[in-house]
Amino acid sequence: MLKIRIPASTANLGPGFDTLGMALNLYNYLEVNTKTNGFKIEVFGEGKDYIPKDENNIVYKMMNTIFNRARFKPNGLSIKLENNIPIARGLGSSAAAIVGGALAANLLIPNPLSLEELLLIVTEFEGHPDNVAPALIGGLISSIYTTEKIIYKKINPPQDLNLVVAIPDYTLSTKVARNALPQNIPLQDAVFNIGYSTLLVLALQEGDYNLLGQVMKDKIHQPYRLPLVPGMNEVFKAALQAGAISVALSGSGPTLIAFSQNNSEIIGQAMQNAFLQYDISCQYKILKPDLNGAIVINNQ
Amino acid sequence: MLKIRIPASTANLGPGFDTLGMALNLYNYLEVNTKTNGFKIEVFGEGKDYIPKDENNIVYKMMNTIFNRARFKPNGLSIKLENNIPIARGLGSSAAAIVGGALAANLLIPNPLSLEELLLIVTEFEGHPDNVAPALIGGLISSIYTTEKIIYKKINPPQDLNLVVAIPDYTLSTKVARNALPQNIPLQDAVFNIGYSTLLVLALQEGDYNLLGQVMKDKIHQPYRLPLVPGMNEVFKAALQAGAISVALSGSGPTLIAFSQNNSEIIGQAMQNAFLQYDISCQYKILKPDLNGAIVINNQ
Repeated sequence: MLKIRIPASTANLGPGFDTLGMALNLYNYLEVNTKTNGFKIEVFGEGKDYIPKDENNIVYKMMNTIFNRARFKPNGLSIKLENNIPIARGLGSSAAAIVGGALAANLLIPNPLSLEELLLIVTEFEGHPDNVAPALIGGLISSIYTTEKIIYKKINPPQDLNLVVAIPDYTLSTKVARNALPQNIPLQDAVFNIGYSTLLVLALQEGDYNLLGQVMKDKIHQPYRLPLVPGMNEVFKAALQAGAISVALSGSGPTLIAFSQNNSEIIGQAMQNAFLQYDISCQYKILKPDLNGAIVINNQ
Repeated sequence: MLKIRIPASTANLGPGFDTLGMALNLYNYLEVNTKTNGFKIEVFGEGKDYIPKDENNIVYKMMNTIFNRARFKPNGLSIKLENNIPIARGLGSSAAAIVGGALAANLLIPNPLSLEELLLIVTEFEGHPDNVAPALIGGLISSIYTTEKIIYKKINPPQDLNLVVAIPDYTLSTKVARNALPQNIPLQDAVFNIGYSTLLVLALQEGDYNLLGQVMKDKIHQPYRLPLVPGMNEVFKAALQAGAISVALSGSGPTLIAFSQNNSEIIGQAMQNAFLQYDISCQYKILKPDLNGAIVINNQ
């Protein structure tokens, strides 16, 4: 039995649009058993009622891609998903599925791929590295996807950092959120994000919370996505007033994330209440950075 | 006698347009003596023939701004500039003049300003922090200038890093170089620079030369300034072929800079030769990062 744990992830982190992502200690579990014949997918938890249980399942599709590359074909396969990451909310659920499938398949083929090869394959499958890279490697990942490879650096965020995620009850597709963005932006807005994203990474690397409180600012995606997440600015305001260090849209939303050291419960409640003013109900979770990425918790 | 040493600086460093700047171990010296009466400015070295020696002198203007703020007026003043930083070439000569003047004036007034106050004043005077921040503080500075303050972080680049600067014999005004830039750029180009500038700072912070070799890339200013620096791409190519780790336009040019560990003389000659193909003669210098910024070398 092969069992893998894969973390959720939050991408963008304000200024680091399409380049930054951080793994969170909210996990999906993937259990894979080879069988003499037959094929079965079971899904528990998030998405259990509508996630495909046939060849269209994303975990299976990723596994199959790796099997085909390796010219390997298992006789039969039993796949069990225990999902804790809410789906289509900006917390990297599809990245977790892809990374889980890739890692599991890699442990079944005769000549396993290297971490770098795996990273490239999951990025190609997902289309961008922002979520798959932290889901695979853990920590905060700064990455660039060029045609032939992923250039990245892993930073370990401070362990006393809390991530309060307010997860609305509605989904938002990444495609819709991407279509809200303009083709061109003012050069000055680009400079704004270049400066702030660099300072943000340095703040998280050094655990400099004073700096962190000043630099999670964005001009190139969050303002354009405001209409897709009603109440965004008010939830941000409520979180900051309740003591959050800084706030951002998680991925392309609708989840909003607050960074905090203390008062995390109060911050979560404040975010929940602010969303309610817009008739949006949400749950909140208090998470930590995950530093390990996807790990094998059973392989025998 | 008050004597101050101020470093040259290189801004932008490829992707970090308008946000990154690094101090270099090429120095201007400023000597200031108070007198019972009269006013005198002497200039030696770079710009000695055309730098104003009256109230229009930029060092004097900066000093005067600080004096006025402090409601202080010296009876007489003798200012001596020993300039080694070439003027209007993208090596921060005006930033050095401003920082020198500010630091000198600050040592003469009754209640000296803090470093943060000085940084804000010199930034307001220069218009942006990219060069004045490293000239004042040293090292590699990542900075953002907001209306009321400068948010910055200092990184110490590795000391075995060489900076080969190829300085053409013609000047290029920052204003002309800025007018070459578009108002709007593609969102994808902004993402490109956001990702690369963050990775560049991490590479320089950790002395990761393999990463440095991959990330000094820019899409938002260098391509537009190509017509202002004939041969730019060919000089870059020549430097890389001679063993440079990476290359960039220094500030808004026309100086080009190559980052190297070894072969720095050969790289400098290759850059010089490549410029010559375009009938541009240039000198080259092999420099090091300066980690101290402006320092007082005599105050008695």
